[in-house]
Amino acid sequence: MLSKSQIKLITSLKQKKYRLQHGLFVVEGVKTITELLQSSFKLQKLYTTQSFKIDANNDTIDELLISESDLKRISFLTTPNTALAVFKIPKPSIIEETGLTLALDAIRDPGNLGTIIRLCDWFGIKNLVCSNQTVDCFNPKVIQATMGSITRVNISYVNLDSYLQKTKRPIYGAFMDGNNVYKKQNLTDGILVMGNEANGISETIEALITEKISIPRFGDVQATESLNVATATAILLSEFKRRS
Amino acid sequence: MLSKSQIKLITSLKQKKYRLQHGLFVVEGVKTITELLQSSFKLQKLYTTQSFKIDANNDTIDELLISESDLKRISFLTTPNTALAVFKIPKPSIIEETGLTLALDAIRDPGNLGTIIRLCDWFGIKNLVCSNQTVDCFNPKVIQATMGSITRVNISYVNLDSYLQKTKRPIYGAFMDGNNVYKKQNLTDGILVMGNEANGISETIEALITEKISIPRFGDVQATESLNVATATAILLSEFKRRS
Repeated sequence: MLSKSQIKLITSLKQKKYRLQHGLFVVEGVKTITELLQSSFKLQKLYTTQSFKIDANNDTIDELLISESDLKRISFLTTPNTALAVFKIPKPSIIEETGLTLALDAIRDPGNLGTIIRLCDWFGIKNLVCSNQTVDCFNPKVIQATMGSITRVNISYVNLDSYLQKTKRPIYGAFMDGNNVYKKQNLTDGILVMGNEANGISETIEALITEKISIPRFGDVQATESLNVATATAILLSEFKRRS
Repeated sequence: MLSKSQIKLITSLKQKKYRLQHGLFVVEGVKTITELLQSSFKLQKLYTTQSFKIDANNDTIDELLISESDLKRISFLTTPNTALAVFKIPKPSIIEETGLTLALDAIRDPGNLGTIIRLCDWFGIKNLVCSNQTVDCFNPKVIQATMGSITRVNISYVNLDSYLQKTKRPIYGAFMDGNNVYKKQNLTDGILVMGNEANGISETIEALITEKISIPRFGDVQATESLNVATATAILLSEFKRRS
């Protein structure tokens, strides 16, 4: 049986404020929950309509069998999917100053952030640095969109301005008027900054960029003004990695 | 004043069946409506809370000033945005057998299709061929995600199997186990097929592919199994175009 306090806790985790206060976040769906159980993430409690049979790194799974209707009461989805788990928010590791690091300047859309985390996983980007204005990666919509990739990328929220001021590595930024990325012979490891959906990279951050790069547009003059930030990130990560 | 029959017509256009029956679709938001008014798309009627001041190709704009509360009644959005327009579904042009053509095998997610249409616009892909199992491009969520690009891409719904059987051009397909796209010296014009979100390219279509291509994965063995279809399309269109 679900207790009132469990229901209250879980539903509160929709909001960033309570996720930070409790140090907990929610994951839904058997596939993603299984990925998290097999990672270094620590389970707080699993609520499920069917018992879980998996090889978990977590020694024991604190599982509560609940009814479909109880799952409906705690789920954030319109169509709940067998199980909902509450995990502990891990402490971020130190940001390594090697390889290619991706930095996000105020990405607001949860779907975009989730897609970008999945891209980091695919392209072996170990460190994702988010400005404090970027949407929280433990937002349930972000978790859903990462498809489990969140367990394999070290995500840090920082004052992006201070972080970039301290680094000695090249800082690339995606701009409309940057150098044609296809014509670059070399793209050395460093930091690649992607900007906000509506406003791009902010002026303060722009001042710290050491090279502006751009994806050429092939459509005619009336073509769309910009690419979606997740698709632009896909293309630029591909450009860095195919040369490596 | 909105009439009952106008409300009934507009709300019916949420469903593909009624869009086909009436040959009409809905567009919301001043920016996208303006783009469509300046294109070859024909307006049926514009419902707006503020009069439109634009240079439209359409000789006269059949505009009805309505109240905020009336807009709320007809809008498909939770936060309606000043105006809603009903446009006529255009007849698709003939699919040109030149340049790079993108073909979609049963893409189901409206956001993915919208993003892919925007990518076609950016990369100058004139012809987008969708299997009949692909989500309708006049679905309001698709229109929203295209950001106006729908006016600049010729989109055809076809029996993809028959279409591919008839062509003499190269047919590339995106697969997990295809040739490394980065190592290809040449990617000639032809048709690039992208598959369904969950199942990839269907067996019938796979049999017609002349070359399987693949985006290499750089993450370790545990990394995500696949890329989102819109981000994979972004990377492959970029690979074709950077060589052109």
